[in-house]
Amino acid sequence: MAVVGASARENSPGNVVWRNLAAYPGEVVPVTPSATQIDGVTAYSSLRDVPGHIDLAVVAVPASAALDVVRDAAAAGVGACVIVSAGFAETGPAGQALQDEMVKVAREAGVLLVGPNCLGVQNCDVPLNASLSAGAAVGGGGISVITQSGSYAMALHALSEDEGVSFAVAYSSGNRCDIDDAEVVDQLRIDPRTQVICAFVESLGDGRLFVEVARRTTPVKPLIVNAVGRSEAGARAAASHTAALAANRRTWDDVLASVGVVVTRSGLEMLDAAKVLRAQPLPTGSRVAIITNSGGTGTELADLLADEGLSVPELSSGLRASLDAILPGYASSANPVDITPVWTRFAELYPAVLDLLARSGEIDIVIPVLLHRSAENPEVADAIVAAIAALRSDHVMVPVYVCWVARRSAWPVAAKLQEAGIPCLEWPARTASAIGHAARYGSHRRANQRFEPTSPHETKALPLGVGFDAELTREFLVAQGIPVVETIRCDSAESALTAAARLGYPVVAKVDHPDLLHKSDVGGVRLGLGTASEVLDAVSELLELAPDAQVLLQTQARGLELVVGGLSDATLGPIVAFGLGGVLVEVLDDVSFAAAPLDIEAAQALIARPRGAVLLDGVRGMPGVDRAAVANLVQTVGELMATYPQIAELDLNPVLATADGVVAVDVRLIRSDDVNSLLGS
Amino acid sequence: MAVVGASARENSPGNVVWRNLAAYPGEVVPVTPSATQIDGVTAYSSLRDVPGHIDLAVVAVPASAALDVVRDAAAAGVGACVIVSAGFAETGPAGQALQDEMVKVAREAGVLLVGPNCLGVQNCDVPLNASLSAGAAVGGGGISVITQSGSYAMALHALSEDEGVSFAVAYSSGNRCDIDDAEVVDQLRIDPRTQVICAFVESLGDGRLFVEVARRTTPVKPLIVNAVGRSEAGARAAASHTAALAANRRTWDDVLASVGVVVTRSGLEMLDAAKVLRAQPLPTGSRVAIITNSGGTGTELADLLADEGLSVPELSSGLRASLDAILPGYASSANPVDITPVWTRFAELYPAVLDLLARSGEIDIVIPVLLHRSAENPEVADAIVAAIAALRSDHVMVPVYVCWVARRSAWPVAAKLQEAGIPCLEWPARTASAIGHAARYGSHRRANQRFEPTSPHETKALPLGVGFDAELTREFLVAQGIPVVETIRCDSAESALTAAARLGYPVVAKVDHPDLLHKSDVGGVRLGLGTASEVLDAVSELLELAPDAQVLLQTQARGLELVVGGLSDATLGPIVAFGLGGVLVEVLDDVSFAAAPLDIEAAQALIARPRGAVLLDGVRGMPGVDRAAVANLVQTVGELMATYPQIAELDLNPVLATADGVVAVDVRLIRSDDVNSLLGS
Repeated sequence: MAVVGASARENSPGNVVWRNLAAYPGEVVPVTPSATQIDGVTAYSSLRDVPGHIDLAVVAVPASAALDVVRDAAAAGVGACVIVSAGFAETGPAGQALQDEMVKVAREAGVLLVGPNCLGVQNCDVPLNASLSAGAAVGGGGISVITQSGSYAMALHALSEDEGVSFAVAYSSGNRCDIDDAEVVDQLRIDPRTQVICAFVESLGDGRLFVEVARRTTPVKPLIVNAVGRSEAGARAAASHTAALAANRRTWDDVLASVGVVVTRSGLEMLDAAKVLRAQPLPTGSRVAIITNSGGTGTELADLLADEGLSVPELSSGLRASLDAILPGYASSANPVDITPVWTRFAELYPAVLDLLARSGEIDIVIPVLLHRSAENPEVADAIVAAIAALRSDHVMVPVYVCWVARRSAWPVAAKLQEAGIPCLEWPARTASAIGHAARYGSHRRANQRFEPTSPHETKALPLGVGFDAELTREFLVAQGIPVVETIRCDSAESALTAAARLGYPVVAKVDHPDLLHKSDVGGVRLGLGTASEVLDAVSELLELAPDAQVLLQTQARGLELVVGGLSDATLGPIVAFGLGGVLVEVLDDVSFAAAPLDIEAAQALIARPRGAVLLDGVRGMPGVDRAAVANLVQTVGELMATYPQIAELDLNPVLATADGVVAVDVRLIRSDDVNSLLGS
Repeated sequence: MAVVGASARENSPGNVVWRNLAAYPGEVVPVTPSATQIDGVTAYSSLRDVPGHIDLAVVAVPASAALDVVRDAAAAGVGACVIVSAGFAETGPAGQALQDEMVKVAREAGVLLVGPNCLGVQNCDVPLNASLSAGAAVGGGGISVITQSGSYAMALHALSEDEGVSFAVAYSSGNRCDIDDAEVVDQLRIDPRTQVICAFVESLGDGRLFVEVARRTTPVKPLIVNAVGRSEAGARAAASHTAALAANRRTWDDVLASVGVVVTRSGLEMLDAAKVLRAQPLPTGSRVAIITNSGGTGTELADLLADEGLSVPELSSGLRASLDAILPGYASSANPVDITPVWTRFAELYPAVLDLLARSGEIDIVIPVLLHRSAENPEVADAIVAAIAALRSDHVMVPVYVCWVARRSAWPVAAKLQEAGIPCLEWPARTASAIGHAARYGSHRRANQRFEPTSPHETKALPLGVGFDAELTREFLVAQGIPVVETIRCDSAESALTAAARLGYPVVAKVDHPDLLHKSDVGGVRLGLGTASEVLDAVSELLELAPDAQVLLQTQARGLELVVGGLSDATLGPIVAFGLGGVLVEVLDDVSFAAAPLDIEAAQALIARPRGAVLLDGVRGMPGVDRAAVANLVQTVGELMATYPQIAELDLNPVLATADGVVAVDVRLIRSDDVNSLLGS
């Protein structure tokens, strides 16, 4: 290891990195032209002068000097450089040029670059702390964290110290000039010491690669992503900070979740989820039992678990009888099980109730709530640890997580539990959120037992004319397996009459003109034309809406209105979108997204996700629709988006669904290679 | 003070209470028949034997002995008893009877009762700790907490110790057999030492009184309510625990918020909100500036603030120029202001940037994010305290809250800030949530500068026939100022033709029969009947739907569909409900509630609350509606519900709104004194 810019001046970056590497068991040399030794270790003035092979050089010099250091590293055959200095792409075009030149030099020589503008990297198990962090994360914990934000790399140290969380790798990616985060995830996927991967990001780098890597990671180990920059101000800040491309952030969380990623809304939530996913067997269902000695906190936790989609079911009469046999008089064997504040019996009752619940077959997750007196009593912790060991030796693999509410001075008791692999989560809200993630990820893993590697998706050229000509576009979509209602183009009221006779009454007439994209805004859609005279009147008026306007005539279809779409996202690649009901989509933006292509299970999951999805099964006075047909349509659109990269955007809006199937009534396809269409959209 | 059941046996309830009272500056006597002294203090065998007046007796004896103790207290003229024992109403009918008898005895003698089944009470400023709590909450903080859950009373001690939160009164209400929580709130409202009131409840006791007290409390000081038992399991647990009535919990949060209550979802969120509302001037707007030294955490916080409805606006070019003049090269003067990790300049830059932002007039709230190195540096804290003192002496009252991310060992630095009245909130999520509450409460206070006491709402008897007879009901509602579409009842196709001619075509026909309440489910609604023959056909079919069915004929009205309703809630009293759009109400349950009666501002706030409220102003292809008419209708329904307690339920569904006004198309009124209607509903 080499530290370029190493310094004896306290609190200077070169000094912080130098001291952080002191615990490294291998050799570390200082490189600086301004000293002959640091802390008694001989300093070299350049990487070129260091004898022997350098695996890693940490570069803590001003940006203006960094390029020369990388040149030296290239000449010296250094394996990789971690550049903690700032002043590159995040500062503007000049910094970008400097960064690009640095990458060029490094790649020509086969030197890997981490950063710049990053905190550095830590391999906590070694321990190797090649970073600017004040304090090191504790190793041996199997949680690896990739972060664009240096402060989250430092937070790992705080969580190690305060909450006993331990880690494997902490990788601060900064400007990511050379190595993409997705490549790091892919490496951590096969790293045997890493059991859970976290990523705190402001941008996704190569988003398509990220989705591809996530697809093969999540069936093997949990990948938790917290992507900030969702809000307008957040996006502004993220852009200034990491020089990343603006993107349609609204889709990110959905698309990542569709490939099994655990998506969180705050960095602490990400780390709590990691702690829970790391430690216990995965939940195999969503039925939770709570053991509490305070009714209020048990009730609060039950509410918050329900918000996460988990159930806290009533227990069977047999199980309640077993519980009642050991519980004190005023206790409740309902779920939450409230053992009441019988201080003297805590160490006996918590493990006994836990054992009965875990073995019952009625419950997938058990949460002992340890509060104040029960939390501060080490005998309670010891007894819970012993009870879980007994369960495991009988192959009862129900996960147990502790909800912990007590003063910090009682934390050593929680530490006992955590050292035995039982996560302790502070307060009901943090507890419910983390366990919700564990349950959802458990469900993903059950549905995706293993990743089936496929060859890269075959792509094809989009036929000429598709996207320009409505009839060609419709024929193309029909040939791809997308049902589209028959449409006849008319340029006169007379031809419309002939068309209506062929389609059969009632018919729908819509204006068609490149300037009138939002037809209903201009009164350009006439529904339910039941007679020839109604068609005549309507079509004559529509033809007047614009010079050279034409009219499209269709059979009047009925059914539940859906929106199915495809999007080639600048960051994430091909995406499918699904929403229900005109007003839900238009007003509430009730649309969900998934990565394309998707299998039929993922298509079914997507159509269940919007808030309005309950409409698919019919509600008061409305019949249910053919869900299989809807899922098939979504899957077909996904296949189409993955096969034809030239499709920038595909809108099937509305699609009408009935118990007998689905049909797209209006279609719009925008080619990415069609500048005019793009400008007009 | 007397402790009944005082004991020298360690960890027994009587011992815990006795020891907790040791710090009380007045006289405390033990009462127990089984000892002559406790810790050297003479014990009495009964309250009757204690010489002098007893202000408060804490009763820690088994439930079976408690009634006799209350009899003794009555005989001895004790002021109040705090009964910490369990085994009363929460255990079933026998316990309820025992509790009722205890209340009867106490009330006859004028003895107040707190509990039973409670942790006790603490007046932290005295200090008086008349409770079972392990440890006492620290006084002098102005935050008073009413809690049904003993564990939250204990949590105050943990928060005092760990996060430097201090309190005024902690009141554990338990079964609330005598004093209602609302009465305690009303007392704390006029308590000069209480600046913020928190209530953690599983039930609301006298909910109408609670709403009434909340109305007069929130214009004076913040009232924060966390009501658990929202979920099915939570409600089950709450019922077993506190013997409270089941109620329609869905409405609680909305109704409380409508009278200015700060509503939270977890106990910790409640206490964080209290901490923020206690310490700084109230925000006078929602424009937030963030000062950070880590881009990632600043971005995360900006996202989470946006989720709370706050804005993190771009700063003016003038302000940015002033900031740029002091910021280092790579820093960002956008908002969030990122001063970058320039450790050596933290103590200079944080206060300087804070000062510029607070004086700018562009910002209502400033949040310095103190992370790791900046959090651990006491000079930074001192400099921020000095900067805020300078602002206040210049009457710049912009509130400042610190977002704090560092290891716990650095907490003494945060304690410095908190002692100076600057709340430090750990992690971005807790920070954003608490500040969101402060901003919303600030907005409530601006709109409600003071409470205008009114005489109790005048109530009237509901005229006979209203609720039974559709025509009488319609006439009554019209007389009250509710526009209802003209409706003609017909019992034959012939009379329908006459009615249609009078109303004018097109008309709507609806079946009317007591067995067919959900008309559209049975095909009982026919819209857009444009001709006499259509009316004939439709009405003939509708009359066949049930023996003795009749048909209601109305003019076909058009407009945006609204639902306006009134409900006499068993817990909260009269309530108004408002929702938009058939599918939004039916499928997404997108309805909001407010306490009735309401003023016009509250009515406007209510109609803005549903997710679909954007429809009121018109969206693509749909015109906006007359918001003032909608708000007036809501206010009128509120007045009606408050005036006529006999109305159990009023449904105006749909109401059709246009740019010209509103009209109710279908009305349903259920009387609470009409058993048959209630059974049929």
